[in-house]
Amino acid sequence: MTDERREGIMRAVYSALCSAGYADLTMQDIADEAGLSKGALHYHFDTKRDLLIAFLEHLYGLYTDRLAAAEDAAGDDPEERLDALLDAAMYPPEKPAFREFRTAVLEIKAQAPYEPAYRERLAEFDGFLHDRVEAILADGVERGLFDDEVDPDAVASFVVTVINGAHTRGVAVGHPVEEVRETLGDYLDGEYATDREVEAR
Amino acid sequence: MTDERREGIMRAVYSALCSAGYADLTMQDIADEAGLSKGALHYHFDTKRDLLIAFLEHLYGLYTDRLAAAEDAAGDDPEERLDALLDAAMYPPEKPAFREFRTAVLEIKAQAPYEPAYRERLAEFDGFLHDRVEAILADGVERGLFDDEVDPDAVASFVVTVINGAHTRGVAVGHPVEEVRETLGDYLDGEYATDREVEAR
Repeated sequence: MTDERREGIMRAVYSALCSAGYADLTMQDIADEAGLSKGALHYHFDTKRDLLIAFLEHLYGLYTDRLAAAEDAAGDDPEERLDALLDAAMYPPEKPAFREFRTAVLEIKAQAPYEPAYRERLAEFDGFLHDRVEAILADGVERGLFDDEVDPDAVASFVVTVINGAHTRGVAVGHPVEEVRETLGDYLDGEYATDREVEAR
Repeated sequence: MTDERREGIMRAVYSALCSAGYADLTMQDIADEAGLSKGALHYHFDTKRDLLIAFLEHLYGLYTDRLAAAEDAAGDDPEERLDALLDAAMYPPEKPAFREFRTAVLEIKAQAPYEPAYRERLAEFDGFLHDRVEAILADGVERGLFDDEVDPDAVASFVVTVINGAHTRGVAVGHPVEEVRETLGDYLDGEYATDREVEAR
Protein backbone atom coordinates (compact mmCIF):
# COMPACT_ATOMS: atom_id res chain seq x y z
CA MET A 1 0.00 0.00 0.00
CA THR A 2 1.37 3.47 -0.81
CA ASP A 3 1.95 5.90 2.06
CA GLU A 4 -0.65 8.14 0.51
CA ARG A 5 -3.32 5.44 0.51
CA ARG A 6 -2.45 4.46 4.09
CA GLU A 7 -2.65 8.11 5.16
CA GLY A 8 -6.04 8.45 3.43
CA ILE A 9 -7.39 5.35 5.16
CA MET A 10 -6.17 6.56 8.56
CA ARG A 11 -7.88 9.91 8.01
CA ALA A 12 -11.04 8.02 7.04
CA VAL A 13 -10.91 5.96 10.26
CA TYR A 14 -10.64 9.21 12.23
CA SER A 15 -13.68 10.72 10.51
CA ALA A 16 -15.75 7.55 10.67
CA LEU A 17 -14.99 7.11 14.39
CA CYS A 18 -16.11 10.68 15.01
CA SER A 19 -19.39 10.15 13.14
CA ALA A 20 -20.30 6.62 14.17
CA GLY A 21 -18.39 5.99 17.41
CA TYR A 22 -16.52 2.73 17.86
CA ALA A 23 -19.39 0.30 18.52
CA ASP A 24 -21.40 1.24 15.43
CA LEU A 25 -18.39 1.66 13.14
CA THR A 26 -18.43 -0.51 10.01
CA MET A 27 -15.85 -1.20 7.31
CA GLN A 28 -18.41 0.32 4.91
CA ASP A 29 -18.38 3.64 6.84
CA ILE A 30 -14.59 3.75 6.62
CA ALA A 31 -14.54 2.78 2.93
CA ASP A 32 -17.08 5.55 2.22
CA GLU A 33 -14.99 8.11 4.08
CA ALA A 34 -11.84 6.96 2.24
CA GLY A 35 -13.54 6.99 -1.16
CA LEU A 36 -12.67 3.30 -1.61
CA SER A 37 -14.80 0.28 -2.31
CA LYS A 38 -15.35 -1.99 0.67
CA GLY A 39 -13.44 -4.67 -1.29
CA ALA A 40 -10.42 -2.39 -1.71
CA LEU A 41 -10.41 -1.63 2.03
CA HIS A 42 -10.66 -5.35 2.87
CA TYR A 43 -7.74 -5.99 0.53
CA HIS A 44 -5.55 -4.02 2.97
CA PHE A 45 -7.26 -4.88 6.26
CA ASP A 46 -9.13 -8.12 6.90
CA THR A 47 -11.30 -6.87 9.74
CA LYS A 48 -12.36 -3.73 11.57
CA ARG A 49 -10.18 -4.98 14.41
CA ASP A 50 -7.05 -5.15 12.21
CA LEU A 51 -7.77 -1.69 10.89
CA LEU A 52 -8.27 -0.29 14.37
CA ILE A 53 -4.95 -1.77 15.48
CA ALA A 54 -3.19 -0.11 12.53
CA PHE A 55 -5.01 3.12 13.39
CA LEU A 56 -3.82 2.98 17.01
CA GLU A 57 -0.26 2.46 15.75
CA HIS A 58 -0.65 5.44 13.44
CA LEU A 59 -2.00 7.58 16.31
CA TYR A 60 0.87 6.47 18.52
CA GLY A 61 3.36 7.79 15.96
CA LEU A 62 1.58 11.16 15.86
CA TYR A 63 1.31 11.27 19.65
CA THR A 64 4.97 10.54 20.36
CA ASP A 65 6.13 12.96 17.63
CA ARG A 66 3.92 15.70 19.03
CA LEU A 67 5.02 15.21 22.64
CA ALA A 68 8.71 14.96 21.71
CA ALA A 69 8.46 18.14 19.61
CA ALA A 70 6.79 20.03 22.47
CA GLU A 71 9.49 18.92 24.88
CA ASP A 72 12.30 19.85 22.48
CA ALA A 73 10.82 23.28 21.83
CA ALA A 74 10.76 23.97 25.58
CA GLY A 75 14.58 23.90 25.77
CA ASP A 76 16.70 22.58 28.59
CA ASP A 77 14.95 23.48 31.84
CA PRO A 78 13.21 20.41 33.35
CA GLU A 79 10.28 22.41 34.75
CA GLU A 80 9.59 24.00 31.37
CA ARG A 81 9.99 20.69 29.55
CA LEU A 82 7.52 19.04 31.91
CA ASP A 83 5.00 21.87 31.47
CA ALA A 84 5.27 21.66 27.69
CA LEU A 85 4.92 17.87 27.72
CA LEU A 86 1.79 17.97 29.89
CA ASP A 87 0.24 20.75 27.79
CA ALA A 88 0.83 18.63 24.69
CA ALA A 89 -0.64 15.53 26.36
CA MET A 90 -3.71 17.31 27.74
CA TYR A 91 -4.44 19.78 24.95
CA PRO A 92 -4.12 17.98 21.63
CA PRO A 93 -4.39 20.19 18.55
CA GLU A 94 -8.01 21.13 17.90
CA LYS A 95 -9.00 18.96 14.98
CA PRO A 96 -12.52 18.88 13.56
CA ALA A 97 -14.87 16.87 15.76
CA PHE A 98 -12.24 16.54 18.45
CA ARG A 99 -14.83 15.98 21.21
CA GLU A 100 -16.36 13.10 19.27
CA PHE A 101 -12.93 11.61 18.72
CA ARG A 102 -12.07 11.77 22.42
CA THR A 103 -15.34 9.95 23.11
CA ALA A 104 -14.51 7.23 20.58
CA VAL A 105 -11.10 6.75 22.25
CA LEU A 106 -12.88 6.15 25.55
CA GLU A 107 -15.04 3.52 23.82
CA ILE A 108 -11.88 1.84 22.54
CA LYS A 109 -10.41 1.85 26.07
CA ALA A 110 -13.58 0.08 27.23
CA GLN A 111 -12.92 -2.64 24.62
CA ALA A 112 -9.36 -3.25 25.81
CA PRO A 113 -10.21 -6.05 28.28
CA TYR A 114 -11.71 -8.01 25.39
CA GLU A 115 -9.13 -7.11 22.73
CA PRO A 116 -5.58 -7.77 23.94
CA ALA A 117 -4.15 -6.14 20.80
CA TYR A 118 -5.94 -2.86 21.66
CA ARG A 119 -4.71 -3.10 25.22
CA GLU A 120 -1.11 -3.55 24.03
CA ARG A 121 -1.37 -0.45 21.85
CA LEU A 122 -2.99 1.59 24.65
CA ALA A 123 -0.24 0.45 27.03
CA GLU A 124 2.30 2.00 24.64
CA PHE A 125 0.70 5.44 24.96
CA ASP A 126 0.50 4.99 28.73
CA GLY A 127 4.13 3.86 28.95
CA PHE A 128 5.47 6.58 26.69
CA LEU A 129 3.93 9.38 28.73
CA HIS A 130 4.98 7.74 32.00
CA ASP A 131 8.58 7.33 30.83
CA ARG A 132 8.91 10.90 29.56
CA VAL A 133 7.57 12.37 32.82
CA GLU A 134 9.81 10.06 34.83
CA ALA A 135 12.90 11.00 32.78
CA ILE A 136 12.31 14.73 33.16
CA LEU A 137 11.76 14.42 36.90
CA ALA A 138 14.89 12.29 37.29
CA ASP A 139 16.88 14.84 35.28
CA GLY A 140 15.62 17.68 37.52
CA VAL A 141 16.55 15.75 40.65
CA GLU A 142 19.99 14.85 39.29
CA ARG A 143 20.73 18.46 38.47
CA GLY A 144 19.66 19.58 41.95
CA LEU A 145 16.73 21.58 40.55
CA PHE A 146 14.03 19.31 42.00
CA ASP A 147 13.68 18.01 45.54
CA ASP A 148 15.68 14.78 45.81
CA GLU A 149 12.84 13.14 47.75
CA VAL A 150 10.74 13.03 44.60
CA ASP A 151 10.09 9.48 43.42
CA PRO A 152 10.08 9.99 39.62
CA ASP A 153 8.39 6.66 38.88
CA ALA A 154 5.55 7.11 41.41
CA VAL A 155 4.91 10.74 40.43
CA ALA A 156 4.98 9.87 36.72
CA SER A 157 2.44 7.12 37.27
CA PHE A 158 0.20 9.49 39.21
CA VAL A 159 0.42 12.05 36.39
CA VAL A 160 -0.67 9.44 33.83
CA THR A 161 -3.60 8.51 36.06
CA VAL A 162 -4.63 12.17 36.40
CA ILE A 163 -4.52 12.67 32.63
CA ASN A 164 -6.66 9.55 32.12
CA GLY A 165 -9.08 10.95 34.69
CA ALA A 166 -9.22 14.35 32.99
CA HIS A 167 -10.08 12.63 29.72
CA THR A 168 -12.78 10.39 31.21
CA ARG A 169 -14.38 13.13 33.32
CA GLY A 170 -14.34 15.43 30.31
CA VAL A 171 -16.27 12.90 28.25
CA ALA A 172 -18.58 11.59 30.97
CA VAL A 173 -19.65 14.78 32.74
CA GLY A 174 -18.08 17.61 30.74
CA HIS A 175 -15.56 18.49 33.45
CA PRO A 176 -13.07 21.08 32.08
CA VAL A 177 -9.62 19.68 31.30
CA GLU A 178 -8.13 23.15 31.95
CA GLU A 179 -9.06 22.91 35.63
CA VAL A 180 -7.28 19.55 35.95
CA ARG A 181 -4.22 20.94 34.16
CA GLU A 182 -4.00 23.76 36.68
CA THR A 183 -4.34 21.56 39.76
CA LEU A 184 -1.86 19.08 38.28
CA GLY A 185 0.63 21.94 37.86
CA ASP A 186 0.16 22.94 41.52
CA TYR A 187 0.57 19.33 42.62
CA LEU A 188 3.81 18.90 40.68
CA ASP A 189 5.14 22.20 41.89
CA GLY A 190 4.55 21.03 45.47
CA GLU A 191 6.19 17.68 44.72
CA TYR A 192 9.43 18.83 43.19
CA ALA A 193 9.99 22.21 44.84
CA THR A 194 13.24 21.98 46.80
CA ASP A 195 13.32 22.67 50.54
CA ARG A 196 15.05 25.99 49.80
CA GLU A 197 12.12 27.06 47.64
CA VAL A 198 9.59 25.94 50.25
CA GLU A 199 11.34 27.96 52.98
CA ALA A 200 11.40 31.02 50.74
CA ARG A 201 7.61 30.97 50.36
CA MET B 1 -44.03 -2.68 40.04
CA THR B 2 -43.21 -4.39 43.35
CA ASP B 3 -39.86 -3.64 45.00
CA GLU B 4 -38.99 -7.27 44.58
CA ARG B 5 -39.58 -7.20 40.83
CA ARG B 6 -37.62 -3.95 40.47
CA GLU B 7 -34.76 -5.43 42.48
CA GLY B 8 -34.79 -8.54 40.27
CA ILE B 9 -34.70 -6.46 37.11
CA MET B 10 -31.82 -4.35 38.42
CA ARG B 11 -29.84 -7.47 39.26
CA ALA B 12 -30.59 -8.74 35.76
CA VAL B 13 -29.26 -5.51 34.21
CA TYR B 14 -26.07 -5.95 36.23
CA SER B 15 -25.57 -9.52 35.03
CA ALA B 16 -26.48 -8.77 31.43
CA LEU B 17 -24.10 -5.78 31.33
CA CYS B 18 -21.31 -7.99 32.64
CA SER B 19 -21.96 -10.65 29.99
CA ALA B 20 -22.78 -8.53 26.96
CA GLY B 21 -21.26 -5.12 27.69
CA TYR B 22 -23.29 -1.99 27.03
CA ALA B 23 -23.15 -1.77 23.23
CA ASP B 24 -24.36 -5.32 22.60
CA LEU B 25 -26.89 -5.36 25.43
CA THR B 26 -30.48 -6.12 24.38
CA MET B 27 -33.80 -6.04 26.23
CA GLN B 28 -33.98 -9.77 25.47
CA ASP B 29 -30.70 -10.39 27.36
CA ILE B 30 -32.06 -8.55 30.37
CA ALA B 31 -35.45 -10.29 30.22
CA ASP B 32 -33.67 -13.65 30.06
CA GLU B 33 -31.52 -12.79 33.09
CA ALA B 34 -34.61 -11.61 35.00
CA GLY B 35 -36.65 -14.67 34.08
CA LEU B 36 -39.29 -12.41 32.49
CA SER B 37 -40.77 -12.31 29.01
CA LYS B 38 -39.52 -9.47 26.84
CA GLY B 39 -43.11 -8.16 26.88
CA ALA B 40 -43.20 -8.06 30.68
CA LEU B 41 -39.91 -6.15 30.74
CA HIS B 42 -41.19 -3.67 28.14
CA TYR B 43 -44.30 -3.17 30.26
CA HIS B 44 -42.07 -1.58 32.90
CA PHE B 45 -39.43 0.04 30.69
CA ASP B 46 -40.08 1.24 27.15
CA THR B 47 -36.49 1.14 25.94
CA LYS B 48 -33.03 -0.05 26.88
CA ARG B 49 -32.24 3.62 27.48
CA ASP B 50 -35.06 4.02 30.03
CA LEU B 51 -33.98 0.87 31.78
CA LEU B 52 -30.34 2.01 31.90
CA ILE B 53 -31.40 5.32 33.42
CA ALA B 54 -33.37 3.49 36.12
CA PHE B 55 -30.34 1.23 36.65
CA LEU B 56 -28.01 4.22 37.10
CA GLU B 57 -30.45 5.66 39.66
CA HIS B 58 -30.49 2.34 41.47
CA LEU B 59 -26.66 2.20 41.46
CA TYR B 60 -26.50 5.76 42.75
CA GLY B 61 -28.59 4.77 45.77
CA LEU B 62 -26.26 1.84 46.52
CA TYR B 63 -23.17 4.01 45.97
CA THR B 64 -24.22 6.84 48.25
CA ASP B 65 -25.41 4.42 50.98
CA ARG B 66 -22.11 2.55 50.82
CA LEU B 67 -19.94 5.68 50.97
CA ALA B 68 -22.00 7.24 53.76
CA ALA B 69 -21.82 4.01 55.79
CA ALA B 70 -18.03 3.83 55.36
CA GLU B 71 -17.65 7.42 56.50
CA ASP B 72 -19.94 6.92 59.51
CA ALA B 73 -18.09 3.79 60.58
CA ALA B 74 -14.80 5.72 60.57
CA GLY B 75 -15.94 7.92 63.44
CA ASP B 76 -15.20 11.59 63.95
CA ASP B 77 -11.60 12.16 62.81
CA PRO B 78 -11.52 13.88 59.37
CA GLU B 79 -8.39 12.04 58.22
CA GLU B 80 -9.91 8.67 59.05
CA ARG B 81 -13.24 9.61 57.48
CA LEU B 82 -11.51 10.67 54.28
CA ASP B 83 -9.48 7.44 54.15
CA ALA B 84 -12.62 5.35 54.65
CA LEU B 85 -14.52 7.30 52.00
CA LEU B 86 -11.76 6.90 49.42
CA ASP B 87 -11.36 3.20 50.19
CA ALA B 88 -15.10 2.76 49.65
CA ALA B 89 -15.01 4.75 46.39
CA MET B 90 -11.97 2.94 44.99
CA TYR B 91 -12.54 -0.58 46.30
CA PRO B 92 -16.20 -1.47 45.77
CA PRO B 93 -17.31 -4.79 47.26
CA GLU B 94 -16.09 -7.67 45.13
CA LYS B 95 -19.19 -8.81 43.31
CA PRO B 96 -19.16 -11.57 40.72
CA ALA B 97 -17.78 -10.32 37.40
CA PHE B 98 -16.75 -7.02 38.93
CA ARG B 99 -14.08 -6.40 36.28
CA GLU B 100 -16.63 -6.82 33.51
CA PHE B 101 -19.00 -4.47 35.28
CA ARG B 102 -16.32 -1.78 35.63
CA THR B 103 -15.70 -2.11 31.91
CA ALA B 104 -19.40 -1.71 31.11
CA VAL B 105 -19.50 1.45 33.25
CA LEU B 106 -16.69 2.89 31.14
CA GLU B 107 -18.74 2.10 28.03
CA ILE B 108 -21.68 3.95 29.56
CA LYS B 109 -19.43 6.96 30.31
CA ALA B 110 -18.45 6.97 26.63
CA GLN B 111 -22.17 7.21 25.73
CA ALA B 112 -22.76 10.22 27.98
CA PRO B 113 -22.07 12.87 25.29
CA TYR B 114 -24.89 11.35 23.21
CA GLU B 115 -27.30 10.59 26.07
CA PRO B 116 -27.90 13.65 28.26
CA ALA B 117 -29.90 11.54 30.73
CA TYR B 118 -26.88 9.26 31.29
CA ARG B 119 -24.66 12.29 31.72
CA GLU B 120 -27.02 13.75 34.34
CA ARG B 121 -26.93 10.52 36.32
CA LEU B 122 -23.14 10.23 36.04
CA ALA B 123 -22.81 13.84 37.20
CA GLU B 124 -24.66 12.87 40.39
CA PHE B 125 -22.01 10.26 41.27
CA ASP B 126 -19.28 12.76 40.42
CA GLY B 127 -20.92 15.51 42.48
CA PHE B 128 -21.64 13.28 45.49
CA LEU B 129 -18.03 12.16 45.82
CA HIS B 130 -16.73 15.70 45.26
CA ASP B 131 -19.04 17.14 47.90
CA ARG B 132 -18.20 14.54 50.53
CA VAL B 133 -14.44 15.01 50.05
CA GLU B 134 -14.88 18.78 50.12
CA ALA B 135 -16.99 18.64 53.32
CA ILE B 136 -14.47 16.46 55.16
CA LEU B 137 -11.56 18.68 54.12
CA ALA B 138 -13.45 21.83 55.17
CA ASP B 139 -14.27 20.22 58.52
CA GLY B 140 -10.60 19.34 59.08
CA VAL B 141 -9.52 22.89 58.25
CA GLU B 142 -12.18 24.43 60.48
CA ARG B 143 -11.11 22.26 63.41
CA GLY B 144 -7.45 23.21 62.91
CA LEU B 145 -6.49 19.63 62.05
CA PHE B 146 -5.71 20.34 58.38
CA ASP B 147 -3.56 23.10 56.92
CA ASP B 148 -5.76 26.18 56.42
CA GLU B 149 -4.24 26.79 53.00
CA VAL B 150 -6.03 23.73 51.63
CA ASP B 151 -8.65 24.64 49.04
CA PRO B 152 -11.30 21.96 49.77
CA ASP B 153 -13.12 22.45 46.45
CA ALA B 154 -9.99 22.24 44.27
CA VAL B 155 -8.56 19.25 46.15
CA ALA B 156 -11.93 17.45 46.06
CA SER B 157 -12.17 17.96 42.33
CA PHE B 158 -8.64 16.63 41.86
CA VAL B 159 -9.49 13.55 43.93
CA VAL B 160 -12.53 12.82 41.75
CA THR B 161 -10.34 13.15 38.65
CA VAL B 162 -7.76 10.75 40.11
CA ILE B 163 -10.44 8.17 40.92
CA ASN B 164 -11.81 8.45 37.37
CA GLY B 165 -8.28 7.96 36.10
CA ALA B 166 -7.70 4.91 38.30
CA HIS B 167 -10.88 3.36 36.91
CA THR B 168 -10.05 4.10 33.26
CA ARG B 169 -6.42 3.00 33.53
CA GLY B 170 -7.50 -0.16 35.32
CA VAL B 171 -9.83 -1.06 32.46
CA ALA B 172 -7.67 0.13 29.57
CA VAL B 173 -4.22 -1.13 30.53
CA GLY B 174 -4.75 -3.13 33.74
CA HIS B 175 -3.01 -0.58 35.94
CA PRO B 176 -3.48 -1.54 39.64
CA VAL B 177 -5.98 0.64 41.52
CA GLU B 178 -4.07 -0.09 44.77
CA GLU B 179 -1.08 1.85 43.49
CA VAL B 180 -3.22 4.89 42.74
CA ARG B 181 -4.87 4.66 46.18
CA GLU B 182 -1.46 4.76 47.82
CA THR B 183 -0.15 7.74 45.84
CA LEU B 184 -3.46 9.55 46.38
CA GLY B 185 -3.05 9.03 50.14
CA ASP B 186 0.46 10.51 50.00
CA TYR B 187 -0.78 13.45 47.93
CA LEU B 188 -3.58 14.22 50.38
CA ASP B 189 -1.29 13.84 53.35
CA GLY B 190 1.03 16.43 51.75
CA GLU B 191 -1.92 18.73 51.02
CA TYR B 192 -3.55 18.86 54.41
CA ALA B 193 -0.61 18.31 56.76
CA THR B 194 -0.29 21.44 58.92
CA ASP B 195 2.94 23.45 58.99
CA ARG B 196 3.64 22.06 62.46
CA GLU B 197 3.50 18.52 61.15
CA VAL B 198 5.74 19.40 58.19
CA GLU B 199 8.36 20.93 60.51
CA ALA B 200 8.26 17.86 62.74
CA ARG B 201 9.17 15.57 59.83
